[in-house]
Amino acid sequence: MARLSSLLYFSITVLIFLHGSTAQQFPNECQLDQLNALEPSHVLKAEAGRIEVWDHHAPQLRCSGVSFVRYIIESQGLYLPSFLNTAKLSFVAKGQGLMGRVVPGCAETFQDSSVFQPGSGSPFGEGQGQGQQGPGQGQGQGQGQGKGQQGQSQGQQCQGQGFRDMHQKVEHIRSGDTIATHPGVAQWFYNNGNQPLVIVAVMDLASHQNQLDRNPRPFYLAGKNPQGQSWLHGRGQQPQNNILNGFSPEVLAQAFKIDVRTAQQLQNQQDNRGNIVRVQGPFGVIRPPLKSQRPQETEANGLEETICSARCTDNLDDPSNADVYKPQLGYISILNSYDLPILRVLRLSALRGSIRQNAMVLPQWNANANAVLYVTDGEAQIQVVNDNGDRVFDGQVSQGQLLSIPQGFSVVKRATSDQFRWIEFKTNANAQINTLAGRTSVMRGLPLEVIANGYQISLEEARRVKFNTIETTLTHSSGPASYGRPRKADA
Amino acid sequence: MARLSSLLYFSITVLIFLHGSTAQQFPNECQLDQLNALEPSHVLKAEAGRIEVWDHHAPQLRCSGVSFVRYIIESQGLYLPSFLNTAKLSFVAKGQGLMGRVVPGCAETFQDSSVFQPGSGSPFGEGQGQGQQGPGQGQGQGQGQGKGQQGQSQGQQCQGQGFRDMHQKVEHIRSGDTIATHPGVAQWFYNNGNQPLVIVAVMDLASHQNQLDRNPRPFYLAGKNPQGQSWLHGRGQQPQNNILNGFSPEVLAQAFKIDVRTAQQLQNQQDNRGNIVRVQGPFGVIRPPLKSQRPQETEANGLEETICSARCTDNLDDPSNADVYKPQLGYISILNSYDLPILRVLRLSALRGSIRQNAMVLPQWNANANAVLYVTDGEAQIQVVNDNGDRVFDGQVSQGQLLSIPQGFSVVKRATSDQFRWIEFKTNANAQINTLAGRTSVMRGLPLEVIANGYQISLEEARRVKFNTIETTLTHSSGPASYGRPRKADA
Amino acid sequence: MARLSSLLYFSITVLIFLHGSTAQQFPNECQLDQLNALEPSHVLKAEAGRIEVWDHHAPQLRCSGVSFVRYIIESQGLYLPSFLNTAKLSFVAKGQGLMGRVVPGCAETFQDSSVFQPGSGSPFGEGQGQGQQGPGQGQGQGQGQGKGQQGQSQGQQCQGQGFRDMHQKVEHIRSGDTIATHPGVAQWFYNNGNQPLVIVAVMDLASHQNQLDRNPRPFYLAGKNPQGQSWLHGRGQQPQNNILNGFSPEVLAQAFKIDVRTAQQLQNQQDNRGNIVRVQGPFGVIRPPLKSQRPQETEANGLEETICSARCTDNLDDPSNADVYKPQLGYISILNSYDLPILRVLRLSALRGSIRQNAMVLPQWNANANAVLYVTDGEAQIQVVNDNGDRVFDGQVSQGQLLSIPQGFSVVKRATSDQFRWIEFKTNANAQINTLAGRTSVMRGLPLEVIANGYQISLEEARRVKFNTIETTLTHSSGPASYGRPRKADA
Repeated sequence: MARLSSLLYFSITVLIFLHGSTAQQFPNECQLDQLNALEPSHVLKAEAGRIEVWDHHAPQLRCSGVSFVRYIIESQGLYLPSFLNTAKLSFVAKGQGLMGRVVPGCAETFQDSSVFQPGSGSPFGEGQGQGQQGPGQGQGQGQGQGKGQQGQSQGQQCQGQGFRDMHQKVEHIRSGDTIATHPGVAQWFYNNGNQPLVIVAVMDLASHQNQLDRNPRPFYLAGKNPQGQSWLHGRGQQPQNNILNGFSPEVLAQAFKIDVRTAQQLQNQQDNRGNIVRVQGPFGVIRPPLKSQRPQETEANGLEETICSARCTDNLDDPSNADVYKPQLGYISILNSYDLPILRVLRLSALRGSIRQNAMVLPQWNANANAVLYVTDGEAQIQVVNDNGDRVFDGQVSQGQLLSIPQGFSVVKRATSDQFRWIEFKTNANAQINTLAGRTSVMRGLPLEVIANGYQISLEEARRVKFNTIETTLTHSSGPASYGRPRKADA
Repeated sequence: MARLSSLLYFSITVLIFLHGSTAQQFPNECQLDQLNALEPSHVLKAEAGRIEVWDHHAPQLRCSGVSFVRYIIESQGLYLPSFLNTAKLSFVAKGQGLMGRVVPGCAETFQDSSVFQPGSGSPFGEGQGQGQQGPGQGQGQGQGQGKGQQGQSQGQQCQGQGFRDMHQKVEHIRSGDTIATHPGVAQWFYNNGNQPLVIVAVMDLASHQNQLDRNPRPFYLAGKNPQGQSWLHGRGQQPQNNILNGFSPEVLAQAFKIDVRTAQQLQNQQDNRGNIVRVQGPFGVIRPPLKSQRPQETEANGLEETICSARCTDNLDDPSNADVYKPQLGYISILNSYDLPILRVLRLSALRGSIRQNAMVLPQWNANANAVLYVTDGEAQIQVVNDNGDRVFDGQVSQGQLLSIPQGFSVVKRATSDQFRWIEFKTNANAQINTLAGRTSVMRGLPLEVIANGYQISLEEARRVKFNTIETTLTHSSGPASYGRPRKADA
Repeated sequence: MARLSSLLYFSITVLIFLHGSTAQQFPNECQLDQLNALEPSHVLKAEAGRIEVWDHHAPQLRCSGVSFVRYIIESQGLYLPSFLNTAKLSFVAKGQGLMGRVVPGCAETFQDSSVFQPGSGSPFGEGQGQGQQGPGQGQGQGQGQGKGQQGQSQGQQCQGQGFRDMHQKVEHIRSGDTIATHPGVAQWFYNNGNQPLVIVAVMDLASHQNQLDRNPRPFYLAGKNPQGQSWLHGRGQQPQNNILNGFSPEVLAQAFKIDVRTAQQLQNQQDNRGNIVRVQGPFGVIRPPLKSQRPQETEANGLEETICSARCTDNLDDPSNADVYKPQLGYISILNSYDLPILRVLRLSALRGSIRQNAMVLPQWNANANAVLYVTDGEAQIQVVNDNGDRVFDGQVSQGQLLSIPQGFSVVKRATSDQFRWIEFKTNANAQINTLAGRTSVMRGLPLEVIANGYQISLEEARRVKFNTIETTLTHSSGPASYGRPRKADA
């Protein structure tokens, strides 16, 4: 009996093993028979917001080779500077704020000029000079440093220009902004509005820009995340410290020419605020005036591709820039490397869509990219079809959900709420869309005889299949239209 | 005893496991001690032909990162439009036909002009206008639609221009044509000759153009393959439907503005013809006249790299374009991205060889590419040597067989039939060949002293090794020649 | 009891299995909690030197996707020609010698002109014409072939031009030279100095230039390595032969137009000298005069990117070309694709550093590359910090050791010997460094408010953190400096 049982165990073990082994030797993570609308799997809570991480081990994200995250930054919240091992494309889903990126080797082109011209009014509205510190500092006296005339009177600490600050570019961001970030480049966000600032971002794990393994690895320059990188296998229980924490305080003191006590302070070891902290008092960084919506973007002068001055953001929510626009149905805007040359390096692009109730995005597939679709507003009914002709998704997706659409998989979307708005990130700097139906569709490119013979229909039916839909991308999903009756073909 | 046996089982299990585990943690699929001439492993039979698929899990194909397929399309057979997740390079091994590709966003530049100028004769010989449908349609009356004068008389269905067709480029293909296809771009073939049209194709699974896993995934726009994608693990038993089948008929009806019955027809659910169907009656697509062999190819006008007008085919069987030509021995033609710029994007190239009995291709290796060699005619004796200096293949390859030659592996070929002809696909847009012997060989580039010291031979012997063979690529394999006697070195 | 024990075994087995399986399905080879200074794991001894190979399966090298090797070539030693499946970047750590690369299809531009002008003295100092053979040849008479006037008198073997040699470019190499080599391109080295010639090299396994699996695979054109490729799983016991050994002698005889006996000699089957052999007598290859240090490199004429004339070497040991130079501290030189355009193709770059006792390289990380650091002289104290803020290395590295620094990991180096010199290879043609402290650091790019809020320090402290260190890269590590006191900020 014992022999029998052990034989049984052995067989099971070998079976399990062989199954695992086969799966690994011939990886087929894109053999997807079922997609799901995904919700975040890990939530990192912080003092002034939270970071919601999707599990990049989910089969459909593994197939797409990306990882996805949502940052929710409360009013006055500061997402501390961090960098990644991957290229990142972010989208501001809600709110407004400030964003800074620190590109290595570039100059601090944002300088505070008010010190030198005390008479000239600072163009920056918010009261600079009353900067205060977070809790735990306690000593409010004297180091809430003034600037300008005020700064001149502060004795030994302020030798004339002592409190002049200068730093790299700070940009205003607002809903609809799409932001490209290189691997290794530190970035911070600050919510200076009254509602939460919601930013979603895709990280391209499968790109050659990520030279580590296929895991998203944020490196924090400041702060401490007590919950740790729970989305990484084998890192679940450890807190995640900032990278300064890893150096010995003496080394930091030497490197920064500061005393060891301050060096220890840089390690944030006693800090439990997480990676989004609440700024106490005004946040007086130098920033350009919030004039009209970035007028300078319209003028390309050939210098924009210098790494330091390269434009890295574009707004996708202005219908006047839409690529497809139908007043009754909605609009679609595409951001690829022709619009934002930096994407050529990152090999990512984005599509923003906004459609009304009962509008339909004609069935289409991505020829050369994987896509992940994130719903920013409303709901839609979506169907996705895989290479085997099976419907692998047929359901409702609603605000805050994510759907992965692998290369070649066909998808059709129909709004089921007043407004359905989404952002789609694609793993190609110039993702190509092929539509199944419509004026620029694959059906239009096929001769009638191929259609007739392929589907075993008459030439007349083939003609209807080919020419009846004269829209390119968006159409009404419910109108009785002229189904079955011929319509005038588009010339 | 039971304990002993279970111990034994345990040990075996752990051993098996550890072996598997090691293999996976340190993948070495190119540790090839044995190559084989490969035959197709799966055959998909269809109404008017068959698709033969090589198992891409075979170690040597896995090492090369490619998949290989042979399409055999009978006379009047139509290979239904499909697209792939990978770049594809095809070679017409036999026969002739028509080919269409549907590039997304490009215009339907092939228009039927005869409607408007009823007096002018159509330049296209075949009787257009008598298009009929496949079996199962049955109702021959009235929807076999005429065009031109004939079409004018057909009542309510033909409002003047009702039957004018227009579609994207259709090209004549014939034996020797090499065809580059992007991922996601739909393609169809039609055999309008009397003998089978045989097309072999390589799919580059390892390229970044494939953003899915390392499996070839054809997406069918029409038809149904009852045998399924048997080459994919876990897909063996399911039939493969066309992608329209995955959408609900109502959605299709809305998208195409057709009635639901026609939409259901587009799903080919009752269709058991497979992916190559027989066209009943004439196949009247608009195509250019079959004049001289593509004269327009000789004139490059700088516009050829526009994605819509990019040239995607070239013929490798014209000896007058050969890169290496020796009247007594044969010729070799190379197609790389200098000839066909589109290959720069696809990162593939091809080499066509044709040698006579007893000709030898001097030993060589691919510096920067994997290659797969497919024999189109005749037989040859081939030796392949791996990085360990072991002969991993030494045998006969004959028509229809495939041999993988990984990067760096040296190979020598000698024809053993009247004529040996092959096509070699390489995974680099500009694959570099290094020869071991001959006028441009590595031996010629080495100083005599290196050769003499390396092989422990005299300088005089080294000189013979270096200079005796004055050919670059092709030589006689059996002639007594002047072995051992010095020959005049090539200046 | 038996049942119990087998249950136990079963559980353990499944546990082990599941662990392995999980690790493999979600590879995380860069989850590095511990780095080590690595020493070679395999030593291949040869007649005139040895080849020391680092185990590329070590977790930190697997994460970096590279393999590393050190060649020690004794005086008069010849490293026989070989090529690799990967791009290679080599650095001459010690000694001097000659190097030849054989680029396929390029002309033999080094020709011996002395034959034709017997009156003109050969510009090459060493006595050519007395070339002798290694042991095992024995017959010293008559095949030590002369050239020039001497060669004229040697009867039937020298028909006038019989001993004129010509071959591809031969270059002098010396300590500090960095040499880029394409995959598939054969290369040899000869030590013509009196001390050992030490060359270290990185092979980029993860690059798309390597189309095989992630193992380094040298292909030898001559010689035989009796110890085999012990660093490859499953190749441990077999000797590694040269690639000619894999062909049958008859085929070689036909290809080279030589007799079968010489063909057998080319297979080096009886040769146990290994891949570095001792040259007997002078080594009379044609080489340019060893004039000033490669003056021709300073003149770029636009033609240098032709594959045949492309410059592939540069010297990093000339402080006058340093990118960072501080007389008291040391210098740093960078070689990227702007200096050596061929690196654009190889996607590799190098950094040479040389610092004095107590100098410190400010903490920094590589934004877009993995790096491996090899110590050529002296010792240093190094700290490395991973993405979790953990110190994964904190120790001494000394001459001959290797340290891997993955993308994004921060590192600080302090010399602890008189002189600390190292070479760093990076897996990007233009690796970007971000510093944590210093004039061009990320801290400088951040607004004071971000620093103050992030670290919970006062604006005054933030100002010190940001502005105190005015150096960019190198600083004193021990000087008391002005820690804690403000210094004049750099404008």
